[in-house]
Amino acid sequence: MTTPARRDLANAIRFLAIDAVQAANSGHPGMPMGMADIAEVLWNDYLRHSAKNPTWFNRDRFILSNGHGSMLQYALLHLAGYDLSIEDLKKFRQLESKTPGHPENFMTPGVETTTGPLGQGFANAVGMALAEKLLAQRFNRPEFDVVDHHTWVFMGDGCLMEGISHEAASLAGTWGLNKLVAFWDDNKISIDGNTDGWFTDNTPARFEAYGWNVVRGVNGHDADEIKAAIDTALKSDKPTLVCCRTTIGFGSPGKAGKESSHGAPLGKDEIVATRAALDWPHAAFEIPAEIYNAWRSPKGAVREAEWNTLFDKYSAKHPELAAELMRRNRNELPQGFVAAADAYIAKLQADGPVVASRKASQMAIEAYAPLLPELIGGSADLAHSNLTLWKGSKSVATDDPNANYIYYGVREFAMTAISNGLGLHECFIPYDATFLVFSDYARNAVRMSALMGAHAIHVYTHDSIGLGEDGPTHQPIEHLASLRYIPGNDVWRPCDAVESAVCWKKAIERYNGPSCLIFSRQNLPHQPRNAQQIKDIERGGYVLKDSVGAPELILIATGSEVGLAMQAAEQLGDKVRVVSMPSTDVFDRQDAQYRESVLPKACRKRVAIEAGVTGFWRSYVGLDGAVVGIDSYGASAPIEQLLPHFGFTVDNVVATARSLG
Amino acid sequence: MTTPARRDLANAIRFLAIDAVQAANSGHPGMPMGMADIAEVLWNDYLRHSAKNPTWFNRDRFILSNGHGSMLQYALLHLAGYDLSIEDLKKFRQLESKTPGHPENFMTPGVETTTGPLGQGFANAVGMALAEKLLAQRFNRPEFDVVDHHTWVFMGDGCLMEGISHEAASLAGTWGLNKLVAFWDDNKISIDGNTDGWFTDNTPARFEAYGWNVVRGVNGHDADEIKAAIDTALKSDKPTLVCCRTTIGFGSPGKAGKESSHGAPLGKDEIVATRAALDWPHAAFEIPAEIYNAWRSPKGAVREAEWNTLFDKYSAKHPELAAELMRRNRNELPQGFVAAADAYIAKLQADGPVVASRKASQMAIEAYAPLLPELIGGSADLAHSNLTLWKGSKSVATDDPNANYIYYGVREFAMTAISNGLGLHECFIPYDATFLVFSDYARNAVRMSALMGAHAIHVYTHDSIGLGEDGPTHQPIEHLASLRYIPGNDVWRPCDAVESAVCWKKAIERYNGPSCLIFSRQNLPHQPRNAQQIKDIERGGYVLKDSVGAPELILIATGSEVGLAMQAAEQLGDKVRVVSMPSTDVFDRQDAQYRESVLPKACRKRVAIEAGVTGFWRSYVGLDGAVVGIDSYGASAPIEQLLPHFGFTVDNVVATARSLG
Repeated sequence: MTTPARRDLANAIRFLAIDAVQAANSGHPGMPMGMADIAEVLWNDYLRHSAKNPTWFNRDRFILSNGHGSMLQYALLHLAGYDLSIEDLKKFRQLESKTPGHPENFMTPGVETTTGPLGQGFANAVGMALAEKLLAQRFNRPEFDVVDHHTWVFMGDGCLMEGISHEAASLAGTWGLNKLVAFWDDNKISIDGNTDGWFTDNTPARFEAYGWNVVRGVNGHDADEIKAAIDTALKSDKPTLVCCRTTIGFGSPGKAGKESSHGAPLGKDEIVATRAALDWPHAAFEIPAEIYNAWRSPKGAVREAEWNTLFDKYSAKHPELAAELMRRNRNELPQGFVAAADAYIAKLQADGPVVASRKASQMAIEAYAPLLPELIGGSADLAHSNLTLWKGSKSVATDDPNANYIYYGVREFAMTAISNGLGLHECFIPYDATFLVFSDYARNAVRMSALMGAHAIHVYTHDSIGLGEDGPTHQPIEHLASLRYIPGNDVWRPCDAVESAVCWKKAIERYNGPSCLIFSRQNLPHQPRNAQQIKDIERGGYVLKDSVGAPELILIATGSEVGLAMQAAEQLGDKVRVVSMPSTDVFDRQDAQYRESVLPKACRKRVAIEAGVTGFWRSYVGLDGAVVGIDSYGASAPIEQLLPHFGFTVDNVVATARSLG
Repeated sequence: MTTPARRDLANAIRFLAIDAVQAANSGHPGMPMGMADIAEVLWNDYLRHSAKNPTWFNRDRFILSNGHGSMLQYALLHLAGYDLSIEDLKKFRQLESKTPGHPENFMTPGVETTTGPLGQGFANAVGMALAEKLLAQRFNRPEFDVVDHHTWVFMGDGCLMEGISHEAASLAGTWGLNKLVAFWDDNKISIDGNTDGWFTDNTPARFEAYGWNVVRGVNGHDADEIKAAIDTALKSDKPTLVCCRTTIGFGSPGKAGKESSHGAPLGKDEIVATRAALDWPHAAFEIPAEIYNAWRSPKGAVREAEWNTLFDKYSAKHPELAAELMRRNRNELPQGFVAAADAYIAKLQADGPVVASRKASQMAIEAYAPLLPELIGGSADLAHSNLTLWKGSKSVATDDPNANYIYYGVREFAMTAISNGLGLHECFIPYDATFLVFSDYARNAVRMSALMGAHAIHVYTHDSIGLGEDGPTHQPIEHLASLRYIPGNDVWRPCDAVESAVCWKKAIERYNGPSCLIFSRQNLPHQPRNAQQIKDIERGGYVLKDSVGAPELILIATGSEVGLAMQAAEQLGDKVRVVSMPSTDVFDRQDAQYRESVLPKACRKRVAIEAGVTGFWRSYVGLDGAVVGIDSYGASAPIEQLLPHFGFTVDNVVATARSLG
């Protein structure tokens, strides 16, 4: 068997992409054809990974931020010997296949994050590179670099046009993430055509302005130039951007360098011509044995074995560190955490502090964080408003082994996508924070948390018009409903310190998805509860104050409006039940019997009370009930003026309930 | 009377800000104190405006992108003689005052846009500067520069950290908007403290990478340096960033240069100390007459009068151009537009084309745009998917007098905020476009369109799992509901070409707010209608197919699901009514009688059908009805597999309806 040329190894990627897109009659061949040579060099000469163990602890992370080129990644995984067969490739973009249109971390072994929404993969990668840096600071010891891997990102012009690229690159530069290497697919083509008309940035200069190491003018089709660039990157003390001049659709006589190769199959005739041009005589989906052989190097398994040996020695010398690292990597909470949290919650119930729920959130962080070295988080320049700092907070911009606090600056979108990267890397439970209204700036990253099942905790304070004077630009109205409607996202809006502590606990325990924790600016009263009620908080909704006999009227409220509901119930008599509903998402997942026990079908006189849009609550009160809410923008005024102005008074709740007849 | 020193003129701003924040016991004094000297020079020596006529056509636009410093703007407007009294300033941040917490264009004369959400004011300004450039190209004639004004922006570190600053600055550089001048308040302080830990960008180098003219190292407290910088900016053929070194809270002995001056009153003692330090002996809210006198220059009125003279001559020489410009500025559609649109709609009903609604959208643009020179728009690098180009499209990156198409690149957030700027500038009806799922990237700008009442049309195509193979990252689920819940936002999801043409017409006519037009990727059947039904489309919801006698069952559907409802109705018998509901927002605004005529209270057997979250529809079907929708993520597969997989079949609609008993 002869040794194949590098170009042939790259052409294997190209034709798997070409043929799979053609078979699906849908997809993006141009990017895989353009980046195949870069990918071949990176994967065969540098990437540390283990095809048979895709979750090997010390693997490099490979992120395809320009996720529409998914066939590049599938071809790489297949060629490198991952559990992704040629049959899987033939099912590209078919229902329930392991090769969906964009890479999905929950569908395909070896895919680290879900990409497609441009720019976010790059920000996820910044989070992963930060995770590596911090784990190394914390766990490595002399002669034991047990944490030592790189994060490699492919990104296109689209990623670089997106605003999130600015936010994420700026942080990566500030943090000096030198094990992060991004490859820019500089092909001058985006969907609308030649980018001269809309993308004239001097991108290398821009990245230098962020403190990056920039390797300019690399021929992305020349293996030696690519290798030289990567070698430079590996020596830098900064993150590196490798600027690769490439030809989109490389090898296609009729479509190379044209946007027509970007997002549609090449077509049968053009594929024949491309096979001829690239001297690739093999049939569709046929890869010669010597090509497979060259791709399936034993290097990965050898590296993994070497690392295992290293880790065994590390475990012998530093048993506690090794056990702790593996505990974190297994997504396992420290022994005793749950009991400690429950004890804290019980104590809060007994103490009954009257605080803003944002303060209660900080108290919960203060109570839990000392037990959870994996808890890492920060705020988008609102630390003292979101109350995200605690006594043990240490900035990640330092080399402190216990660094755990992230000063994100005013960068909500990158913050959230970086959380996703930290969560996906394992060994961290990330939280981030901003005002609830500015969840808008991060919205698609919140969605991606939920789609990917990333363990991420999004803290949103100043949760209603109750924030007062900052006015309607800062007052959320539709945000609670909008966040709840993101599938897989658990939204919590606790009514007092006790519920706040419970929702933090639940969010910490939720390894397979994100939670949005919504807190008030203003003080909230403490509510009485028995032991069963405390337990039932975890079910998302529960009877906080019950009626005498079957309820004739049910008041349902969340967060700051629960106190209002309790006061109104006093006036409405003893046939009234008050339901506190901190999380509709969690409540909706309870069994039918429990839900019926809280909201019996027989009782149609229901009033929901929440300082947000009313429509959302029709799922709970129906057409016969009523909602005390707000469907307009708020206003700039002190809270004492705003709440009555918009009808958040006991009198209005009582009148609304009575109007139901 | 002596002529006051420049510093005294600036101190008037400082103390109005200090005293108003103190009176409100809430607000941000640090920024106005830091930028007062810059503002004083700009307003007194350069800004072309007319205090008595805040909407003077050829005024310069002044945008406070760091809107938390609102008292700077209110102080300027008051000092310059706008209709904003000292009493108004005393009511800073009080309910219904003209001085809300952040500048609101709908509350205060002279405020051009609503700011606070960081970075967006800057992007609005880019839109306004583009508007000026295009109007000048179109309407100016030799000796008649009737359109000739500048756009000035104040921005802080926060604006520059936000991703939108990247997107907007890149476009401004590409377009060469040389009449745009941004002042960076480089004070090294953001809310979390000294920015060294989280903002280490070389911002001047970054802006040069965008093709901007950058004036470095200006002492923001030295009037001569500020003047020299502005003079340089006025000569440049590029947009200019003036980098002003300033001290936040300038003049406060205890708080200058500290984050403690940023977001809270200085406090009584510190105010006394600041009065002493700045030699400002006047009481709170007292401005000496000579200070007023110096601020209230007649220059503005003189310039306005000069322009009026120029415009009179222009009107005489170019009467049609003048009339057209003023028509556009009056927010008046061309004569005959409505009749032409109605005729087009009637013809579509007769012709019955079966097309994707995104194609129907393009047909509507093609039909309306030749009548509407004010229509300007583009797409975030998805022109051929969103179908936003029409025959008359000419790129704004050219000097074509009819330039009307914007290649935005992959920049959804800036695109939308630039639309807002174009809409607020008057003389334009802007549209922008991306995939519905990526409305997430632009979400807060959509909200700001609605809050501000900006005339903006947001086109979102690929509106459901029906987009097929691109998979869940690209398939909207919660987006329809989430956009509808934004107060003041009109969302339309038409079911065929006729409804598509109607929603475009309504969006064009809606001068006081935004519309989101939601279109399918896939073909949709044509629906039969009589003349009254065609009219009733404009009411947001109407009976598309009625029952024989009172309805026993109502099917409510939107967009691509209307065809499904019509087919199901065939099987369900003649007691079934089908309601097409292209806009719940518009339908909800109809009078009770009309709503009852469409959805009679007596009929509780209702099924809503929409390829989005089900909860939203409980407002229309209640607890007794049912919803055929989707509450999970979609999947990557051809549409033919996806729709049945997720239950969007006639059989399932029929079965669901029958299950209601």
